[in-house]
Amino acid sequence: MAAICFLSPVKPITFSSSVHSKRSPLFRCNFSLPTITTTEPEPVYTSVRSFAPATVANLGPGFDFLGCAVDGLGDFVSVRIDPSVHPGEISISDITGNHACKKLSKDPLRNCAGISAIATMKMLNIRSVGLSLTLEKGLPLGSGLGSSAASAAAAAVAVNEIFGGKLEVKDLILAGLESEAKVSGYHADNIAPAIMGGFVLINSYDPLELMSLKFPGEKELFFVLVTPEFEAPTKKMRAALPEEIGMPHHVWNCSQAGALVASVLQGDLMGLGKALSNDKIVEPKRAPLIPGMEEVKKAAIRAGAFGCTISGAGPTAVAVIDNEERGKEIGERMVEAFLKEGNLKAVSLVKRLDRVGARLIGSVPAR
Amino acid sequence: MAAICFLSPVKPITFSSSVHSKRSPLFRCNFSLPTITTTEPEPVYTSVRSFAPATVANLGPGFDFLGCAVDGLGDFVSVRIDPSVHPGEISISDITGNHACKKLSKDPLRNCAGISAIATMKMLNIRSVGLSLTLEKGLPLGSGLGSSAASAAAAAVAVNEIFGGKLEVKDLILAGLESEAKVSGYHADNIAPAIMGGFVLINSYDPLELMSLKFPGEKELFFVLVTPEFEAPTKKMRAALPEEIGMPHHVWNCSQAGALVASVLQGDLMGLGKALSNDKIVEPKRAPLIPGMEEVKKAAIRAGAFGCTISGAGPTAVAVIDNEERGKEIGERMVEAFLKEGNLKAVSLVKRLDRVGARLIGSVPAR
Repeated sequence: MAAICFLSPVKPITFSSSVHSKRSPLFRCNFSLPTITTTEPEPVYTSVRSFAPATVANLGPGFDFLGCAVDGLGDFVSVRIDPSVHPGEISISDITGNHACKKLSKDPLRNCAGISAIATMKMLNIRSVGLSLTLEKGLPLGSGLGSSAASAAAAAVAVNEIFGGKLEVKDLILAGLESEAKVSGYHADNIAPAIMGGFVLINSYDPLELMSLKFPGEKELFFVLVTPEFEAPTKKMRAALPEEIGMPHHVWNCSQAGALVASVLQGDLMGLGKALSNDKIVEPKRAPLIPGMEEVKKAAIRAGAFGCTISGAGPTAVAVIDNEERGKEIGERMVEAFLKEGNLKAVSLVKRLDRVGARLIGSVPAR
Repeated sequence: MAAICFLSPVKPITFSSSVHSKRSPLFRCNFSLPTITTTEPEPVYTSVRSFAPATVANLGPGFDFLGCAVDGLGDFVSVRIDPSVHPGEISISDITGNHACKKLSKDPLRNCAGISAIATMKMLNIRSVGLSLTLEKGLPLGSGLGSSAASAAAAAVAVNEIFGGKLEVKDLILAGLESEAKVSGYHADNIAPAIMGGFVLINSYDPLELMSLKFPGEKELFFVLVTPEFEAPTKKMRAALPEEIGMPHHVWNCSQAGALVASVLQGDLMGLGKALSNDKIVEPKRAPLIPGMEEVKKAAIRAGAFGCTISGAGPTAVAVIDNEERGKEIGERMVEAFLKEGNLKAVSLVKRLDRVGARLIGSVPAR
């Protein structure tokens, strides 16, 4: 029997920006031109297991172009070479995790992990090997924590790694984006940080351009994630958005977006929290649709959070803080506020910023 | 006779942010609460001379909240103790410089430098000494280079320094802002960089909050400033702005604003130029009002500029580059384009980023 080895993250984010890096912090790729491997790679493992983190998109004034990854919370994907699967194809053998995951289709064409895995196999030009995939959902569905992106990111990384990791990060993002486009809309603000880790700014979609924003390594950043038992469908939350924005609000949100980016790069948690909380366009329209959200935000700030907003399209509320213990206290106040003001049960988690992104966490080498 | 000493800049920007600074990069002050000196300071000089740089505001997607200072181009103010002036008052004795400066009023209440000087004297609580002021305009009026802000900034610094520099930078900005509010609108995106130097982001106006964005010291940044013989009144340029902005354009400009801020902090000139050029809201409305501007921008990019947009409300076009010689070539192409496409004569200047801001440049000590 082959030994199981647990690897440290194998995917260096080579384009990741550092303030003092000589490299350009800009990472550009064109969605119409993914890498296509001309020669089919051999599998280097018989099975692999990957993890991809939860992500917080939007971030107040970062609406639709900024997201970040959250450590210790996410989805797992296992992929193995399966002679019983038609060569060049993938089968989903199992989906485990929270009870809601029973809703998910095992048809690879209708499943986030499946779509992303197929896109990755196409880029790798896999024709001779069949794969089977197991998805372990660590994330609740539709909670605003990038559940679909985490599945897609973990699947892309697993498929790429089983064949020796030939693809670049941009390709994994493009594979994941194919899944996101079918499942939750053509947005990279969850899939990009799910794969790259840290904070990612989406510069443009045509061509796709991303900017990795490095939060200083010596600083701590914790997210307090409070998810109520409430459904906030992305479609409904998107329908709540204004179509037109007055110039003063536009200028305000732009300046807060700039301040948010500066605060991330400078590790200025107070500035980050303040900018995060300062959205005058999206949050004011969406918060009233989540019972208690406005009071939850106030409770977080009162309890010492640097800032608080809606995670993704909700219903999760996200607050930021520099200390895990204080994060737990803030979370308790937020849970209480959801119950008292929104009559909603909620659970609270305190998690660090993830700086790594989707990664291989285990593998069985091929003979 | 007292010796004249020429001093190096005396006003350290102590709140200026550095990416690795332990200090908060946020600089907050409340317009309603300027410093008021309780005891009247004695003058430490009989006369002083100050300089304040030109500024480029708006910067494409940085509309109305981002500006930066330009070295080697600006206004000079001389202030001296004048026993013939009523104590606690200031008189403008002369305005020199380009011929357009004859338009400027010598009534201190109707002159940028005068208003700012009076506001500074009030904060210092000056009641026993009269001052006279000479303004030397280095900047053309209404060119989009922050002419009024440069006069106001130089005056505030001169008055403060003649009394020993008791006020904080925030107070000088508030004094200058009083002038800007009366002369060209309540906007800090010229006055703040004119006083602080470098790039400054205006976080909010109530209370006034600014963020100094440090462009890395080891990197070069040149502005190619091409000013055509054309009047673009701020009021007319402001009337051209859309009142409402569609969500896609809002998100686009916000993301470009974020990318612009990140590029400044990371010294990424390519990213800075690209973001600068990417405004989809303001520049498309204003550029057609300046004959030839659209072709001037194209000519700048063709000639190798990293980016180009309108400086302030125009008519000056500003391009960015990392090399002075190449900047001169780019400027020539831009001047040609103004002539060919807009039938406008234009002059081109290539100037470095100013990292210091308004400063004392000469003084005569009191006995």
